[in-house]
Amino acid sequence: MTNPENVAEHILAGDVRTAARLMRDLDDGRPAAREVLKLLYPHSGRAHIIGITGSPGVGKSTLTDRLIQHLRAVGKTVGVVAVDPTSPFSGGAILGDRIRMQRHALDEGVFIRSLATRGHFGGLTASARAVVTVLDAMGKDVILVETVGVGQDEVEIAGAADTTLVVTVPGLGDDIQALKAGLLEVADLLVVNKADREGAERTFRDLLTMIDMRSAQSAGGWRPKVFMTQAKEDEGVTELLAGIWEHRNFLSKDGGLALRAARVERVRQEFLELLREGVYNRLVQQLSREGLINRIIEDILDKRSDPYSASEAFIRQTLNQK
Amino acid sequence: MTNPENVAEHILAGDVRTAARLMRDLDDGRPAAREVLKLLYPHSGRAHIIGITGSPGVGKSTLTDRLIQHLRAVGKTVGVVAVDPTSPFSGGAILGDRIRMQRHALDEGVFIRSLATRGHFGGLTASARAVVTVLDAMGKDVILVETVGVGQDEVEIAGAADTTLVVTVPGLGDDIQALKAGLLEVADLLVVNKADREGAERTFRDLLTMIDMRSAQSAGGWRPKVFMTQAKEDEGVTELLAGIWEHRNFLSKDGGLALRAARVERVRQEFLELLREGVYNRLVQQLSREGLINRIIEDILDKRSDPYSASEAFIRQTLNQK
Repeated sequence: MTNPENVAEHILAGDVRTAARLMRDLDDGRPAAREVLKLLYPHSGRAHIIGITGSPGVGKSTLTDRLIQHLRAVGKTVGVVAVDPTSPFSGGAILGDRIRMQRHALDEGVFIRSLATRGHFGGLTASARAVVTVLDAMGKDVILVETVGVGQDEVEIAGAADTTLVVTVPGLGDDIQALKAGLLEVADLLVVNKADREGAERTFRDLLTMIDMRSAQSAGGWRPKVFMTQAKEDEGVTELLAGIWEHRNFLSKDGGLALRAARVERVRQEFLELLREGVYNRLVQQLSREGLINRIIEDILDKRSDPYSASEAFIRQTLNQK
Repeated sequence: MTNPENVAEHILAGDVRTAARLMRDLDDGRPAAREVLKLLYPHSGRAHIIGITGSPGVGKSTLTDRLIQHLRAVGKTVGVVAVDPTSPFSGGAILGDRIRMQRHALDEGVFIRSLATRGHFGGLTASARAVVTVLDAMGKDVILVETVGVGQDEVEIAGAADTTLVVTVPGLGDDIQALKAGLLEVADLLVVNKADREGAERTFRDLLTMIDMRSAQSAGGWRPKVFMTQAKEDEGVTELLAGIWEHRNFLSKDGGLALRAARVERVRQEFLELLREGVYNRLVQQLSREGLINRIIEDILDKRSDPYSASEAFIRQTLNQK
């Protein structure tokens, strides 16, 4: 890798191969890559970030694919981050699912990146954010972040977008309905996909009722909207996209007050997560360098100490403040 | 809460109500509860800990229920930790699933604890470990730790047991087969549950082949064994339990060399996780106390800094060593 300034310049000019190489270098934990990220960061913040989440099998990838297509049709450039933490072991499995999206692979205006395992930032959330920053700095107009809505982390990732879509389908079981209630909290737009299935109207109405009951409102009084789509047949996607723009306009009104509020929260999370991993990595380095960790473990195993006291003692002696 | 020594004494004597109260206090993050944990820790390490994991729907709860029953029949006292991180929002949903187990609720020799949300230790893993320590110190002979094998954390929790069972069923799709390959790495015993279903023999043979191919061996040359069960009908559970004892004997031979090796790894993980959360909590306290966090976020939003540089700078000024 040449010097960070040089790499950053190429990426700011939209160079796809340099961006792809940087993302790999970030995954490999190269310090130089992180320096590039610092240079790119001030150039981020222009893209509209759309989170797409929901249970497995609701058709998130197909919907993402359609959104790419519609966005490209109106000349928007698109970045995609597809996060699938349920496959830390399956490796390639994620690709099969996403083969559909690959038809955009030759389109210069689309950049797709899949994340399956924890990178060197320590968490998928941080890795996903780093990729979003790169895509944003590259000048992509819209960034789609697709995650499986199973764990808290994945919900967090999707929830950290400017506009969050929660996708469901008609006729999911009761346990998934319960999950949906949680996802509702991060949803700006709700999508009933596979709307040709039986019970679609009922799911639609149920969601409206849930919204009313919880009077669920995102920052600043946005009332979540519900859409019906058949992503495979390209039905309802135009209307959904109109809903996305409506939400973006909502965020931008009053000089972007709501957008700023949302981004304060996002920056807070990003900073704190980097802090958590950064300080931890430093302490682990220190512990291994002095062989201290093995002595601590022996002490605990032989009951001269316990993990709680040992960690507290180490923290006390390492931090400057009391 | 009376003084920690007093509470610890009650728990060491096996008092159920004090133990239940301590677990609640731990969830609430009470410092006094943590002091009790320190006192209990040196009394832990006698129970045999069994991890039970696998995809949703394979019958883990039913199998756990049967194991409790068989263990009680031979006079063993049992502790159970049921972890379900997929329901951070569903709250009560976990209870429905586990209603079956509740028939042991009136048995003094059984203690069941469900964990669904992150506690004050920062992660489910740490919360689960704390509960295991309490049950162990209470004098339970066997502790069953049941987790859904979907994310990396859950696999880690189950993998941190003395004996880890990975449960599957005949005829799961290809994607789940891929997941299973990852779960295989932590498995000491593999269980094909619902073995009356079509394809059970094939799944059984496939697992044996997988074991051969990967020559997957846990610490010290244990070759994973495969069992067929129908937990609902109580079929094959006696054989499975015999397999568990065989694995325990394996760990104990040569003066418990393999057991010690496994526990070194467990203590290392426990210590490091407590360290990670502990130091992070201290830094966050410090950041909020001085109102510093808001200034940092403003700087980042206004492009005078970025999250990477800001977190590095704060770490540098906070740690004693360079």
